[in-house]
Amino acid sequence: MTYCVGVLLKDGIVLASDSRMHAGVDNFSKFCKMTLFERAGDRVIGLLSSGSLAGTQAVVSILKQRCESKSDTPNIWTARTMFDVTVLVSDAVREVELRDGKHLEHSATPFNASFIIGGQLAGEAPRLFRTFAEGNFIEAGIDTPFFQTGEAKYGKPIIDRVITPLTSLSDAMKCVLVSFDSTMRSNLSVGMPIDLACIEADGLKVSLRRRFDQGDAYFAALANEWSEGVRNVFRELPPVPV
Amino acid sequence: MTYCVGVLLKDGIVLASDSRMHAGVDNFSKFCKMTLFERAGDRVIGLLSSGSLAGTQAVVSILKQRCESKSDTPNIWTARTMFDVTVLVSDAVREVELRDGKHLEHSATPFNASFIIGGQLAGEAPRLFRTFAEGNFIEAGIDTPFFQTGEAKYGKPIIDRVITPLTSLSDAMKCVLVSFDSTMRSNLSVGMPIDLACIEADGLKVSLRRRFDQGDAYFAALANEWSEGVRNVFRELPPVPV
Repeated sequence: MTYCVGVLLKDGIVLASDSRMHAGVDNFSKFCKMTLFERAGDRVIGLLSSGSLAGTQAVVSILKQRCESKSDTPNIWTARTMFDVTVLVSDAVREVELRDGKHLEHSATPFNASFIIGGQLAGEAPRLFRTFAEGNFIEAGIDTPFFQTGEAKYGKPIIDRVITPLTSLSDAMKCVLVSFDSTMRSNLSVGMPIDLACIEADGLKVSLRRRFDQGDAYFAALANEWSEGVRNVFRELPPVPV
Repeated sequence: MTYCVGVLLKDGIVLASDSRMHAGVDNFSKFCKMTLFERAGDRVIGLLSSGSLAGTQAVVSILKQRCESKSDTPNIWTARTMFDVTVLVSDAVREVELRDGKHLEHSATPFNASFIIGGQLAGEAPRLFRTFAEGNFIEAGIDTPFFQTGEAKYGKPIIDRVITPLTSLSDAMKCVLVSFDSTMRSNLSVGMPIDLACIEADGLKVSLRRRFDQGDAYFAALANEWSEGVRNVFRELPPVPV
């Protein structure tokens, strides 16, 4: 499983991903699911991958390779808008599926790759997209300013309660980490380290990138204070009248 | 969808179910998913139904009909243990599946009925079971003192944080209602009224039965205080160090 979150705010974008990959509980490992493309002052784009690792890695490799190519194939550095960036991701997904899909038809883990794509290109506001396994995609807006992929349910209530487009980047980062804490408590197949990136609006660069690994002092304190606080609130709630 | 919870405590059992039934968002209605069998001083048993309504209603009808039958077919009044009660439920599930299953094989909603069964028979401690669609079943214990069926994920974190076998019945009822609040916020197919029942250990009767319908003053206050409290705890958490 996987857990990825992207949040679109007036102040910018917050992206976060877990790092657990597994093929059954007896075979798990760590892989970073966050890829950043940055050309300071011009564009900054973050990709969060969900799905089978072979598929998502192939998509990311194709995107990176095209960025380095001398040919005039459209790539992330030449795209004019975040919409065009997302089309490139979608095209790469379909390309990999065309190559691998039929070979995996009868596999227990068929081809499956979806992405949260957030960032900003000079001349545009920050934008946030989410592609589906079929390569089609949607864009976040004022009514739903966040996307989750993978094991989304355990960590959704806190995001629903806290996040609006006017939430600060600092609060959104905190909220996303609490959401990861709830998810990791309930689903073993989502695991640390957590990669967190923050892209301030109009900064056109990665404003903050942090990795929270097992035992991280800040994350542990956050999880503890949250747990204690929630238990205290619960204790103070009125009892069911009998 | 459905959301049902059963909790087994040293002090007794708490059961709760939502009432939403739907066949698509354009066709929904209310049905009570809780059935209580009570012979004060001798036994008290609660059933929470999940699955397709035709299937779960048929199972409950068979169980009730057998209780009224003059023949010596084993039934819930004659069962000697909660294990035997659960076997009766399981048998009824398999009987209905035998009758309906093949007719529903190609239906978008194939046969599907599972139950949470909690209660106490004189001579035994309170016990809590959960049947699967196939009719097999498991029993709750000290390590996992609760079962959820249906839309379980949104409401699981609070139960994980609060419930242990030593939790009081009052706290467990409160916790289950908070869990319903989280679930209903995130999934439209879980809806009020919520049926709540409490079975005190060795009381051998239904100690409390409440229905919380839309606009219930206690439930609204609980949901508001919880929401406010959680937001306050969140606000006080330390910010991500930058």
